[in-house]
Amino acid sequence: MSTTKAPEELLKSLRTGHRFLLTSHMNPDGDAVGSSVGLARILRSLGKGAVVWSHDEVPKLYRRLAGSDRIHVGDSPPSGFPESFDAVITLECPSLDRSGLESMLKELPIINIDHHLGNEHYGVVNWVDTAAPSLGEMIYRTARGLMVELDQDTATALYLTLITDTGGFRYSNSTPAAFEAAAALVNEGAQPTQVAQWLYESQPESAIRLLGEMLPTLEIHGERVATTYISSEMFERVAANTSDTEGLIDHPRSIAGVEAVALLRQVDENQFKVSLRSRGEVDVEGIARRNGGGGHRNAAGFLAQGPLEELRQKVVTELEEALD
Amino acid sequence: MSTTKAPEELLKSLRTGHRFLLTSHMNPDGDAVGSSVGLARILRSLGKGAVVWSHDEVPKLYRRLAGSDRIHVGDSPPSGFPESFDAVITLECPSLDRSGLESMLKELPIINIDHHLGNEHYGVVNWVDTAAPSLGEMIYRTARGLMVELDQDTATALYLTLITDTGGFRYSNSTPAAFEAAAALVNEGAQPTQVAQWLYESQPESAIRLLGEMLPTLEIHGERVATTYISSEMFERVAANTSDTEGLIDHPRSIAGVEAVALLRQVDENQFKVSLRSRGEVDVEGIARRNGGGGHRNAAGFLAQGPLEELRQKVVTELEEALD
Repeated sequence: MSTTKAPEELLKSLRTGHRFLLTSHMNPDGDAVGSSVGLARILRSLGKGAVVWSHDEVPKLYRRLAGSDRIHVGDSPPSGFPESFDAVITLECPSLDRSGLESMLKELPIINIDHHLGNEHYGVVNWVDTAAPSLGEMIYRTARGLMVELDQDTATALYLTLITDTGGFRYSNSTPAAFEAAAALVNEGAQPTQVAQWLYESQPESAIRLLGEMLPTLEIHGERVATTYISSEMFERVAANTSDTEGLIDHPRSIAGVEAVALLRQVDENQFKVSLRSRGEVDVEGIARRNGGGGHRNAAGFLAQGPLEELRQKVVTELEEALD
Repeated sequence: MSTTKAPEELLKSLRTGHRFLLTSHMNPDGDAVGSSVGLARILRSLGKGAVVWSHDEVPKLYRRLAGSDRIHVGDSPPSGFPESFDAVITLECPSLDRSGLESMLKELPIINIDHHLGNEHYGVVNWVDTAAPSLGEMIYRTARGLMVELDQDTATALYLTLITDTGGFRYSNSTPAAFEAAAALVNEGAQPTQVAQWLYESQPESAIRLLGEMLPTLEIHGERVATTYISSEMFERVAANTSDTEGLIDHPRSIAGVEAVALLRQVDENQFKVSLRSRGEVDVEGIARRNGGGGHRNAAGFLAQGPLEELRQKVVTELEEALD
């Protein structure tokens, strides 16, 4: 359980500075966007200047957050950089290069806030709490340390980080601290129904139709391995976007008894993107790495050559080996 | 926000009694099973006797809860009834007939614990808190009032009631009190990953295949109404059970912009079970009632005669009217 307070050194640097640049990692997720927007709003409520700079675009899913439209996006720095800023605050960047803005950020003192293992402590202030359920939960503790009352939009931004990073309170980081922060944030105006609607009930029609194309291809091999595929033809038939494939693999993975899953998506006539998922101790990262890809123990992927049925059989064999 | 303590009158009756009969409503849901099992375990930890009696079988989904196998099921009373019991505790029964055991339960003093509007206060003790996110959350407050420390299985049973009644913290009853109870229950050993796996990752293969049969039938009428159907043929092709249809309607409902959904399931050659779902203020209960069915504002259903396409058009028209 993570119950430590935000360190005094951090609070002091936030209290004494006047104008901050905030940034997070490339390809920002809900935690990156929500904690950037949330901290910027907290600093502004104290009368300070705060500019959020993101190397990459904010995904559409998170653009409903108030203030996300003020994020400065791209390679070139915001106006007044670096001279008008006292410090840069990095959020969720275990190393500075994860920001995509490394060479420029080095021109400012760095305040490094993170919850990842292996953070390189590259800042003048470093607060790394690997027990934190989301970076946004650390920002919530920062607000408490600064004695800032959150308004509804700030509470919503930080609440969203909890939902996205804990998978809607389904992952093992759904700790007492995660629920305690959620209780406080809802008390301060975050709306669980609203955030759930943004995240789970705003699917493009094409994503639902693509799921309908994929499911009939489901095969269960033995009891513990399942495979599905999406051909280019299916993809075109429902006018799908790449983002529509997100989460599709969770459906075969949700079948009782299934412990390892592969989704083969055709990206070229004879080329497939292979996504792998597993439960618990079953390691699919090794399979991905041997095939030139990567990922984590329970979620990994690689690119491979077809034909489809040959590739499918090869992947099934590798998954069965991983299960043993 | 619900922060009231369990009333002293209730605590006193639990402290003074020696042997309790516990029951909930017919067709028990997660809240009914989890709070029955949880309260029985709490009472037993105080050295008291506790027997759970359910008119209907415990759904398979909730049989993983420790103690759910000790539930006495059916019409005929458990041994020692009524003479060896001090009182019956009804959980989640706004009126006594909801238990399905009304005539028999009347032989004992009744302790009535509920969170529904319109509870009839039929007990000698009545604790009705309509702000409670789940009945299990009221049982958690009862345990606190009794100064009982929960073991892991009891915490898990009560945690499950929060998940099922708040839709995994997506519904409007995801209050600060819900998150505070979750924090405490996880702290006392409930495992969010385990409960999530029971509830969301233990799907029968046939349910996933039935989803695959249904999705290609999706039609979107205008932008705000969606319909799907399941024919008897589809049902047989994937060897589906009735329980496999649960949750299928959530997929069309999750499409951005869709506010009202109908799923038409063929139950006989020319007969269909029509399930309706809506968002926010859109009322589908009125449609169901006019057609001889019932439900709530956002979830209702009725039985109707086909043919399919005629019925579908009729339902679309009624949903479009409800939207205006």
